[in-house]
Amino acid sequence: MTTYAKGLEGVIAGETAISVINEDAGGLRYRGYALDELTQKASFGEVAYLMMYGRLPNAVELADYRQLLSKLRALPDALCRILEALPGSAHPMDVLRTSTSVLGCLEPEGPRHDAVAVANRLLASFSSCLLYWWIFHQTGHRIDTKNGDDTLAGHFLRSLHGKEPDDLHRQALDVSLILYAEHEFNASTFTARVITSTLADFYGAVTGAIAALRGPLHGGANEAAMELIERYRTPEEAEAGILDSLKKKEKIMGFGHRVYKHSDPRSDVIKVWARKLADLSEEGKRQFAVGERIEQVMRREKDLFPNLDFYSAIVYNRCGIPTPLFTPIFVMSRITGWTAHIIEQRAGNRIIRPSSLYTGPEAATLVPIAERK
Amino acid sequence: MTTYAKGLEGVIAGETAISVINEDAGGLRYRGYALDELTQKASFGEVAYLMMYGRLPNAVELADYRQLLSKLRALPDALCRILEALPGSAHPMDVLRTSTSVLGCLEPEGPRHDAVAVANRLLASFSSCLLYWWIFHQTGHRIDTKNGDDTLAGHFLRSLHGKEPDDLHRQALDVSLILYAEHEFNASTFTARVITSTLADFYGAVTGAIAALRGPLHGGANEAAMELIERYRTPEEAEAGILDSLKKKEKIMGFGHRVYKHSDPRSDVIKVWARKLADLSEEGKRQFAVGERIEQVMRREKDLFPNLDFYSAIVYNRCGIPTPLFTPIFVMSRITGWTAHIIEQRAGNRIIRPSSLYTGPEAATLVPIAERK
Repeated sequence: MTTYAKGLEGVIAGETAISVINEDAGGLRYRGYALDELTQKASFGEVAYLMMYGRLPNAVELADYRQLLSKLRALPDALCRILEALPGSAHPMDVLRTSTSVLGCLEPEGPRHDAVAVANRLLASFSSCLLYWWIFHQTGHRIDTKNGDDTLAGHFLRSLHGKEPDDLHRQALDVSLILYAEHEFNASTFTARVITSTLADFYGAVTGAIAALRGPLHGGANEAAMELIERYRTPEEAEAGILDSLKKKEKIMGFGHRVYKHSDPRSDVIKVWARKLADLSEEGKRQFAVGERIEQVMRREKDLFPNLDFYSAIVYNRCGIPTPLFTPIFVMSRITGWTAHIIEQRAGNRIIRPSSLYTGPEAATLVPIAERK
Repeated sequence: MTTYAKGLEGVIAGETAISVINEDAGGLRYRGYALDELTQKASFGEVAYLMMYGRLPNAVELADYRQLLSKLRALPDALCRILEALPGSAHPMDVLRTSTSVLGCLEPEGPRHDAVAVANRLLASFSSCLLYWWIFHQTGHRIDTKNGDDTLAGHFLRSLHGKEPDDLHRQALDVSLILYAEHEFNASTFTARVITSTLADFYGAVTGAIAALRGPLHGGANEAAMELIERYRTPEEAEAGILDSLKKKEKIMGFGHRVYKHSDPRSDVIKVWARKLADLSEEGKRQFAVGERIEQVMRREKDLFPNLDFYSAIVYNRCGIPTPLFTPIFVMSRITGWTAHIIEQRAGNRIIRPSSLYTGPEAATLVPIAERK
């Protein structure tokens, strides 16, 4: 029998100059820059620029870029009406997927609205789409999505809470956006590249990528991690609960990774922020203690490490973000990586069309319908 | 340097029991049944059932299935309002992509609305979504999508033309739907499988598949083929035009195929129908003569054969179908193959997450923004 790698594990599907994962040499780099250095010395705005335009901006370019994005936060009326027509009970990822597809109808890609223009529009307005829909269905209020905040973290928190965001929350969310921006050929990025390889439009590639990111084996893991942490009131309860789940062979979300074998370097960065925010309240301290105990049990019992999703859940929860909005934050960040990959795929395109191994019946005899039992 | 197959050409990405392509042994089989036999002895309804449920229906089952689909053709009010809010100038594929995503918000997949229920809903209502939107924006009229026709070909033609369809048109479209139903790991099906592999929802997988199918290297080819055929008034003009295009190294759509090396067996079937419909009018005869001349020139000059998309374009045009609606017909048929693949992927799932070959900078030094030039 022909052999193949299930899930294409380890199979090279293409070239990329956007990011590289090297677990033995400091982890992940975006266009050559070490990720931990980016989280310490740069903002998400700079990283977004790096992804879109291939280099870091200077101070003037960054200010211009933030101004451009601020102008692109307002939504077309037709999209607002559609967000109102969608049910409040919908999955927020389905709302972002739909918003992207609708924007592709309203503002199609073309010579006067090229890939980078579409990408910036989506980067600027995902937060608007999500929170316009969320707050309309929670309160009946139609928010003004041009709220003046010139960073994505600030825009998101201000739109969600309707007030000036706490500085520490803004910083933590900014770091989280940097960490989630890009991760080479993950399933959603690969989806975007497969769609792009048919020469489909930019919105289509992003719509498919959002659809893939929704899955609990991909972006949906941060929501599942939060649900796990919230299940336990104390570290002792968590230990007993996790041991019980492991005995029942249940999958524990937020641990392990296809690409990393020993640790996810992004987790170390976000854990520092989770602790910093958790230390501000008793509820936070309790939550963090539960999280750390789950980490210990998973290391001891399964030799598994937390991935980026695990402590991100605590950061988001501490920022007062409702759990169903966690995976959409991943979208708001990853759009930058998707964009770089869509542009790269187009530059050296060949349709991505693999083969399959047939395991079905050789030949079946067609009995006419009148004679079928 | 590590070698890899660009576009995953020839790389086995997974197992399937749904269809097999064997160019030396009669072409394509759906679950063991030879495709040409299916086009001669079965209807699209039977093939859809075969894809959804894994076996051909008997006469009672087929009648029940047609009745079920007929009941599922009516659209929810919210979707009708959204189709009205989308611009009439949108790309019809973007409208189907959006409709699918919206239905995922309105009627989410879940225990009481499982994969097959969602699949049947989409199979029954794509035609409704497309033509409700199309006719509303062309004429301002809100069609009743429950028009009573119990075949998809009939429903589509009746909704489009507002009258009882011609029998020959109905038959030709039915054959075309059978031919487009399934084709193993093509780019849109592979997209659906990648999305599904994250355990995302059914609508998400189909939304991404539609996005991929829109590309001119995939489903979009039948529209491009029609534009090509319509460019020439006579076979002589066509010959001169194609020779000129080849000299300029322009891509001629509707010829050649990643998987087939010598001929596309589906093309022979649809060409018979194209000729049958073309022979009914002088305009048709002229169009068919232009098409055949293009085929001859492409065989002689490039050793390339027409694929399914080429003569399908003439069939659709002869049925009075506007060119922008060609690729959506592909969606209406291929949803059956996508469904079978989504269900199969779930049954033996492993996340599809390949590796990449890094070609970017090794390490870059991060200059703080204040010091950047």
